[in-house]
Amino acid sequence: MSESPDHEFDPRASSLSGKVAEDVMEELLAVRSSIDNIDATLVYLLAERFKATQRVGHLKAEHHLPPADPGREVAQIARLRRLAADAHLDPAFAEKFLNFIISEVIRHHQAISQTRNGGTDVPES
Amino acid sequence: MSESPDHEFDPRASSLSGKVAEDVMEELLAVRSSIDNIDATLVYLLAERFKATQRVGHLKAEHHLPPADPGREVAQIARLRRLAADAHLDPAFAEKFLNFIISEVIRHHQAISQTRNGGTDVPES
Repeated sequence: MSESPDHEFDPRASSLSGKVAEDVMEELLAVRSSIDNIDATLVYLLAERFKATQRVGHLKAEHHLPPADPGREVAQIARLRRLAADAHLDPAFAEKFLNFIISEVIRHHQAISQTRNGGTDVPES
Repeated sequence: MSESPDHEFDPRASSLSGKVAEDVMEELLAVRSSIDNIDATLVYLLAERFKATQRVGHLKAEHHLPPADPGREVAQIARLRRLAADAHLDPAFAEKFLNFIISEVIRHHQAISQTRNGGTDVPES
């Protein structure tokens, strides 16, 4: 297997190479290949989600709507926790995940709002 | 529009109801509906990712492989940053996101390892 050039992803990159039985390494690489596919999907999906929240940010700034929508947020969190339970994902993690995304959305909306109105926050998760 | 029962998600839940022009609210709800679809996909995709890392955790515990794989992690982060740039997502956010997921994976692997070996960490992002 030849080295990948610097800018190219090597799906076999590992500090374990040569230190593990070949069949075990192949099994590990097979699972990692699925993880890599999922990660690419996550990145593109997150990009799409931020496009949607950017649209909301502009809409709110344009119509001078209040930054937060607590009624919406409560419903969102309850739904994500239920979906997580259905998917056998820890509901507490799903909630932490949503909060992680929200903090990035707020950062984006601050940028939109600063550009348009000169400073009011417009978070929308 | 009738109230949803407590356990059901109301996609129109909002503290803005009645305080915004109807056409603006409808536009907001349309974008939120896309966000809700994306969030459901994210939850199921994350559940699938954790299934994969759980398999890796068991494989590593079974073969007494070292917990971390720095060579793999470096390649993963570089790839995610490139994918993020392609998707018009902030590469720094993509890296923060991977680190957020990794910290949860480590938590899972600690649980696997404690069950099997009595305590050694087996992180695999």
